[in-house]
Parts: sequence; C-alpha cells; structure tokens
Amino acid sequence: MTPWNAAQPGDSHADIDTPALLLDLDAFERNLDRMSEAIKGRSVRLRPHAKSHKCPEIALRQIARGAVGICCQKVSEAAVFVDAGITDILITNQVVGAVKIRRVMELAAVARIGVLVDHPLQVQALAAAAAAKAGAVALDVYIEIDVGSHRCGVAPGEDAVHLAELIGACASLRFAGLHCYHGSAQHLRDPMSRATAIAKAAELARTAKQGIEAKGYAVDIVTGAGTGTFTHERDSDVYNELQPGSYIFMDRDYGENLLGADDIRFEQALFVKTTVMSRPTADRAVVDAGLKASSVDSGMPSVWQRSDLRYTNASDEHGVLTTDNARPVAMGEQLMLVPGHCDPTVNLYDTLICVRNGKVEALWPVAARGANL
Amino acid sequence: MTPWNAAQPGDSHADIDTPALLLDLDAFERNLDRMSEAIKGRSVRLRPHAKSHKCPEIALRQIARGAVGICCQKVSEAAVFVDAGITDILITNQVVGAVKIRRVMELAAVARIGVLVDHPLQVQALAAAAAAKAGAVALDVYIEIDVGSHRCGVAPGEDAVHLAELIGACASLRFAGLHCYHGSAQHLRDPMSRATAIAKAAELARTAKQGIEAKGYAVDIVTGAGTGTFTHERDSDVYNELQPGSYIFMDRDYGENLLGADDIRFEQALFVKTTVMSRPTADRAVVDAGLKASSVDSGMPSVWQRSDLRYTNASDEHGVLTTDNARPVAMGEQLMLVPGHCDPTVNLYDTLICVRNGKVEALWPVAARGANL
Repeated sequence: MTPWNAAQPGDSHADIDTPALLLDLDAFERNLDRMSEAIKGRSVRLRPHAKSHKCPEIALRQIARGAVGICCQKVSEAAVFVDAGITDILITNQVVGAVKIRRVMELAAVARIGVLVDHPLQVQALAAAAAAKAGAVALDVYIEIDVGSHRCGVAPGEDAVHLAELIGACASLRFAGLHCYHGSAQHLRDPMSRATAIAKAAELARTAKQGIEAKGYAVDIVTGAGTGTFTHERDSDVYNELQPGSYIFMDRDYGENLLGADDIRFEQALFVKTTVMSRPTADRAVVDAGLKASSVDSGMPSVWQRSDLRYTNASDEHGVLTTDNARPVAMGEQLMLVPGHCDPTVNLYDTLICVRNGKVEALWPVAARGANL
Repeated sequence: MTPWNAAQPGDSHADIDTPALLLDLDAFERNLDRMSEAIKGRSVRLRPHAKSHKCPEIALRQIARGAVGICCQKVSEAAVFVDAGITDILITNQVVGAVKIRRVMELAAVARIGVLVDHPLQVQALAAAAAAKAGAVALDVYIEIDVGSHRCGVAPGEDAVHLAELIGACASLRFAGLHCYHGSAQHLRDPMSRATAIAKAAELARTAKQGIEAKGYAVDIVTGAGTGTFTHERDSDVYNELQPGSYIFMDRDYGENLLGADDIRFEQALFVKTTVMSRPTADRAVVDAGLKASSVDSGMPSVWQRSDLRYTNASDEHGVLTTDNARPVAMGEQLMLVPGHCDPTVNLYDTLICVRNGKVEALWPVAARGANL
C-alpha cells in the first residue's frame, strides 16, 4: 500500500496529493437523507449494499439512519463488518467450498447472517455445517430467483419450490425468503425500460413467492433492487427489502441514466482528484490517474464540471484528456474525475478522504478493500 | 483487506480458497531465465518494470539475475522498493507537485533515482528542489520522447534539445538520457506491425539523440521497450536499456500476440484461481471471480486449458461462463483464469500465492499494491 496518506485531517483541498479518492461529505449526507425520505412510511426496509463502499464508517451511518443491516457480496467482506460491530448482514451470494462455509458459520455464531442458494448441493453443504454446530448457530437462507439478469438464480416454479422444501427440512437452517435482484436493469438509460424490467422482475418474484407459499413455506422477505430501479421495487407490493449501494456515491455510469418522474436524483459525492502532469500538445493533457486509480470496466471517468475535457484513454497510471481549447488546461492543474463505476474504484484505495468546506474532515479506512474471499 | 489468507505455505493447490492470485514458480523462473538469455552478450541492460508485480521478492530475483535496477511508475511505489533495499530505480513518469517532488528528493538521498520530464516547468521544479538540498542529492533526469504512443513526451528536435539545455544548466540535476517507450506497439497482434512500429520508434529516438548530442550533451541511456517488442529495441543499435514488465507473468492479452521469428515465447505464470459457485442452466456456470478479482480493462480473462469454456461477463464478484457441454462443469469445480491484463489484476491483491508441484511454497506480499501517489 502507499507508504503515506494523500492527506491528513485539516489539510486544504488543494493540498491533497493525487490521485486520491475523495468523498464530498455534504453530498454524501444529502444522499443518505434522500434515501431515508424515499422509503419513509413505505412497507419496505433498507439493507444497503456495502460492496460499494467497503467502509464500516459508512455502514454505521446507514444503520444510524434506519437501515436494518447491510448486504455484503463476500464472506471475508462480511467478516470485516462483523468485526466493526455490524450485527445483521445478508451475503448476497452463493457460498461454496468447505473453508468459506466454515467462516460463515463462525460469523453466524456472533451475528445474524444470511446467504443465498440456487442449487440443492449448496443447501446440503450449509445444512451439514449448521447441523454440526448443534443449534449453536442460526443461518438465514434465501433462494435466489433469476428475475431477468440471467446470472445466478433459479426460475420461479418447481426448482424454487424444491429448494424451499430442502431448506425447510433442515432444522439448522431458517428459510428467510427470496433474493430477486435484477442487476442488468440498473443501467438501462430510459426510465420506461427500467420500469418495464422491474415490473417483469416483480411478476417473477410474485410467482415464485406464491408457488412456495402454496406448499406451506412462509416467504418473509423478498429482497433486491439497486440504485437505478429501487423506487419500482419499493412500489411493487412484492419486495419488502431494498439493497441499493451506489446511491451514496453515484458514478458516471449512473449519472447517464435518464430520470423519470418516479426516480430520485442523487448527487455525485465520490471523486478521484488528479493532477495534470504532462501537456505535450495543445489538444492533449495527461493526468496522474489511470486505470489503477479509477476503474474503467464501465467506461472512462468524466471530468467534473469540465465539459471541455474528455478523458479518452487510460493506461495503468496515465489518463489522456483531449481538450478543445475552450478553457486552458495548465501543467499542474488539479481536476476532479467522476469514476465510471464507483464500486471497483473504491476497491483500489485504502482510504476515503472525506472533505467538507474545502478541508479534509476525516480519513475513513476502506477496511474491506480487497476482501474477495 | 481480507481478514485471512487464501492459503498458507504447505497447503495443497486444491485447498487454496478462491478467488486467489497464484504464481506458478517454475514458469516464472523459466521466464526470468528466458529474459536473461535474450539479452546475454548484447549491448543492452535490463531494468524491468515493477509496476507489473509491485512485489519486492520479485524485484530482488530480477536483480539477482542481472537487472541493473527496476522501473516504477509512481513515487510511492518507488518508496516501497527503496524500503525493501532496491537502490536503483527509474520512475518512468513525470513527477509534478511539491509533495511528490519532496518525496523524490528524500528517495534520491538514499538511492539512485531517475525521473522523466517533457516540459520546462517540470525541470524548473526539480532543479529548485534539488538545489535546496545543496549537493546532498543527485537526481537522474530523462527526457521523454514521444516515439509513437502519443501519450506523454516531446517530439525529437527543438523541444527536446531545449529540455536538455535546461537540465544541463542545473548543477543539481544530471541529464541521464532519453525515455522512448512505445506502449501502444506492445499489443499489435501481427509481428510485422510490431517490428515496423519499433523501427519507427528507434528512428525517432536516434534523431532525438543526435540532435541533443550535436549540442554537446551526452545521451548515456536510451531506455524503453516492453514485453511485446523488446527484441526489436534490443537489436536497434540505439536503445541500451530495456524495461519489460509483463514477461514474468504474461496475460491473456499478451498471449494473443502472434509471435514472429525474433520473438521470445514466455509462459503463462500468473493465474486467478476460482470456483464454480452457481450452475443455473446447462449452458451457464458462474464463478466467484469477477472484476474485483481479475481486471477487465483489456478484456475478459480466459479459462486455462478449458477451450470449451468462455468467460463472457464480469460483475463485481461474479464471472459468467458459457459452456458448450463438451465437458461437464460441476458446482464447486475449481478453475484457473488467465487475467486479461496482469498489472491491474496484481494490484487487486495483497498476496501472491506461489505454487510449485501442487503445493503452496511461499506467500509474497504485493507490498506496493495501491501505491499510486
């Protein structure tokens, strides 16, 4: 890791070394408020996804404002949050392999832990491990339904019912509900396309729920949703738990979604601060933030409040900007990038530099950075 | 970071938890040997790029086999290697900003350090900082020439000569030579295209050298080259230092280069071990290594020795494989991925798990992981 920090609390914004990952605390807090407001008085609860931030300081603030707990994507990620005092975590993933299942059971002995299944072998392995603990742990098990993303998950119907029966037959496992996340709907640009995709997802979730309940198994929780679509899941009458993650930060990709009347506008709160380190030609500038500073899996970053600049190419530690000369760009000039995708960008840093009123207010460790086991 | 390691020395290959970054030590050592062999008896020296591995254990082995030192891409990265005992480092980058220049001077007080310039303001800032040390540091300064990548660098001619004059006028700076790296030539698939690109780069480097030497400034070193092209720079009669990085590991992108008669074949030595955690349909399997486990900036990973499997989509912690049913893929099956691009993939991990003969032989810290200041 970097042998020194890019900044210390009290430093001015201009003094933060680059590249650095910055959180605009005012915008972040307004985003938290907007999400609380969006679910107030509704029959849904919030379980934000911590894979976006990997930062206990943020999880604790989400819970302080009403979240029931968090989601994690990996067992080792969940372990970091349990260590930080979070007591209710849904691991939104299948957990496969003896080592991982042993770790899950250790976590479930000290916190409420949920995991997903979409195959009988997963249920058998979890049941055996939980039974070996002889009542000392309770594990929440959710069936993942494929509601449109075609990644993991079973279709509603026979396979889903069979999994519920298998879980129900294990005294050591608790059937908690259905995981119905439609990931690929989150970035459909057109609001109608997102609404249509989630209407279909909700219909699949409802079918799965009814099929399982018809066999006598209560489906307590139907959980899913992301930042791009959560108002539709909220209003669906079938989802009762929402998992948005990116709303606290936002990114260039989410910023390109067109918003409809039902959508909530969140503010860009996450930035990569960068410096122009080379100005080789009149139409080109090179900054010190490349693909090890801002993940490019969802496209290049944009340059905040500089529509005259386009970040066109990233190599490991260089970013090439094309300029149209509308405004000069000086050697040494500091710019703010909006990452293409917030989650993997945060995962490149050990520290989130929290700024307010032009000053560094705090350094928050990205404690679960790299926790991918 | 992950609160436990994916493996311990002595563990069997099958027991390594996933996803994990694996180094095949036999293949790695053969790659080191092949590079030594490729420059034996030639009038070039090797200064491998450490941005690929960020691992002092590897740098020390490169130097033990004849490398004169290493390249780094960032000041904080160089600091990690200086701490580990490396005494000769070329930072192949412009160093801009007071904080970074102060750090460079601290490193130059204890090790031989080189940096690049492509603008008079950079020379002025370095000269002022070095002069303030009053002879206590010597800094090697290289002029970056744009030899075809159109990223940083000046064209041969007037601007390059002017920079040499500026450096030559500063008693506190040592003009060391020219940095002539053609990055975009490395992955041209066709060997003739690579040869042609480097012939042109060498011509530009020669022109720049002659122009500067005509003014009375000796150009000691012409440094550049990468894994895709280094035999051409080696044979150019103008380059006398080579900077390949990826040859120790290789990746899917380099593996797709077609090799010509002059090229050296390196072996794939770097892998991301992964587990099938979901098998939702007959033609789809989902593994536990997504884009936080294997960087996708240069495309998806491939599946080692499984041409029947295609990794078609990466999300944060999921990888979707399409299968053609030629061979079964079982839930829980372990597979080895060849990363699309080795450098940013290594930068996702804290530990390189070194394997030989089916056993974990060592864990090497990726000590400069995330060091991007």
